[in-house]
Amino acid sequence: MKEISKLLEYRPSVKVLDATLRDGGLVNDFFFTDEFVKALYETNIKAGVDYMEFGYRADKELFNESEFGKWKFSSDEHIREIVGDNNTDLKLAIMADVGRCNYKEDIRPKSESPVDCIRVACYIHQIPAAIAMIEDAVNKGYEATCNIMAISTNQQGDLAAALDAVCKSPVSCIYIVDSYGSIYPESMARIADLYVSKAQEAGKQIGIHAHNNQQLAFANTIECVGDGVDWLDATYNSMGRGAGNCAMELLLGFLKNPKYQERYALEFVEKYMNPLKESGAVWGYDLQYLATGLLNQHPRTAIAFTKDGRKDYFEFYKELLATD
Amino acid sequence: MKEISKLLEYRPSVKVLDATLRDGGLVNDFFFTDEFVKALYETNIKAGVDYMEFGYRADKELFNESEFGKWKFSSDEHIREIVGDNNTDLKLAIMADVGRCNYKEDIRPKSESPVDCIRVACYIHQIPAAIAMIEDAVNKGYEATCNIMAISTNQQGDLAAALDAVCKSPVSCIYIVDSYGSIYPESMARIADLYVSKAQEAGKQIGIHAHNNQQLAFANTIECVGDGVDWLDATYNSMGRGAGNCAMELLLGFLKNPKYQERYALEFVEKYMNPLKESGAVWGYDLQYLATGLLNQHPRTAIAFTKDGRKDYFEFYKELLATD
Repeated sequence: MKEISKLLEYRPSVKVLDATLRDGGLVNDFFFTDEFVKALYETNIKAGVDYMEFGYRADKELFNESEFGKWKFSSDEHIREIVGDNNTDLKLAIMADVGRCNYKEDIRPKSESPVDCIRVACYIHQIPAAIAMIEDAVNKGYEATCNIMAISTNQQGDLAAALDAVCKSPVSCIYIVDSYGSIYPESMARIADLYVSKAQEAGKQIGIHAHNNQQLAFANTIECVGDGVDWLDATYNSMGRGAGNCAMELLLGFLKNPKYQERYALEFVEKYMNPLKESGAVWGYDLQYLATGLLNQHPRTAIAFTKDGRKDYFEFYKELLATD
Repeated sequence: MKEISKLLEYRPSVKVLDATLRDGGLVNDFFFTDEFVKALYETNIKAGVDYMEFGYRADKELFNESEFGKWKFSSDEHIREIVGDNNTDLKLAIMADVGRCNYKEDIRPKSESPVDCIRVACYIHQIPAAIAMIEDAVNKGYEATCNIMAISTNQQGDLAAALDAVCKSPVSCIYIVDSYGSIYPESMARIADLYVSKAQEAGKQIGIHAHNNQQLAFANTIECVGDGVDWLDATYNSMGRGAGNCAMELLLGFLKNPKYQERYALEFVEKYMNPLKESGAVWGYDLQYLATGLLNQHPRTAIAFTKDGRKDYFEFYKELLATD
């Protein structure tokens, strides 16, 4: 049982990262208006958020620029159009996927970029490639994180070996990523224990990126806070792939550091996220995502179900069971 | 940290109670069709649910029969029209509120009723009246529970004294009721520890009835399962007052007892709950309920906000802060 004092005090090392543009961009192919992005940036500053993730820096040889909004590629120039020189306490991040980012050319030295942090996303078999990207980013002057995805399908021994390898790199933070939204808080406590113990030995920090397939994204995030996890991902109104993420407005209400101001999160949801949803962008908890989360599967079948406008949830669940 | 074995095994003493008609009835003034209620009853049997709560047995001198559907009053006759003699493993419950139920007359001997269990709901200052109702119910041949509401506003010393008093009664189960949806899992573990330790001494069981104001109804329910709480309330598609309750479809997916079949819950949500929602019944997580939950307030202001069709969440939150 966690100590009572921890419920009323706060740990200054806790950081909140807004992933709305990046994970939310997977919902609308990154077509956010500049007005939206500027308001999001201003909200993050007022609400005391620590990091704002601007999207992917995807390889333009792999992805067609005409098919996506600019935050699929998040060039330094486009970010500067929003933030200028970003003379604020808000740090800026982008995500770089192993195998989908031409990082040697597209990530320029930090001295030429408004970005502070490169988040390197990978699957467990891509750890060596991720470490090469982390080293490249740190050598160029950035802070780097390693976001190992889909760990609910990995063996604990493999995960421990991966953490040992990443801990030897110049990474700042390693993320627990519950890509399938299948992890319960009881298991999350055990996973956090593994990550935090490895990180403490190596002087690294741990983060949590949760998905809401079983309405547990917020619960898993605050479970992790109590377990010593410091970097917390959230998105406004939970906007993110499939069932979405931990809601920023819930997380800021929970955290006790007085710099966090949940009222601005509520204001942003009312003025920008609800209209976005009303305009047709579809994300959030629903039975098809519960189904893939429960079965520890990638959400791609559930996303297809959603895109096809299907409402036959029971039939979908039977399809999953039949092919499980 | 909870034992790994508990994640894969199950405790046979765990019971699931469907509160859809009762807590959900607060959303639509108990106007459910007989077809809906019969399908719900059949679903509960197929899904392995242990108890089905049929609604309140409200005092007809206090509430006008013309203003409510029949499950506000849940007469033995109306229940029999749905279940006949109920020759199934599913037990039937009704809720009787202290001060709002003429129990001496309206609750007849068990031998004349299809009901198995009387759930006595009260606030902490009504414990003596609740004990009188529990004794009356048990003397008439029923099982009885005590559902102490709104405990997030009570002092722990008062709560301990209330539990001591109720534990001396012939009650079977005492419920942790998070009426305001304001309790975090870390605090829930502490509350469950108090309830379970008192109950174990007295040979009673503990239950959990959660609300979803902060998307924690399911998380708090499974936290409680791990802490030794045995009676679990849920409703299909979370239907219940304000932000609603723990979703049955999530809970049955989590529980490992093979008698629970979440697929029938998914089927019922698709065929009955989603159409009910589309027909205009409004419940579930939204920012106004987050706001009252976060501030540990009764949801009545948020329910009024919803009924008035307001969408100015930020203004509402400022109103709450100004009067907090």
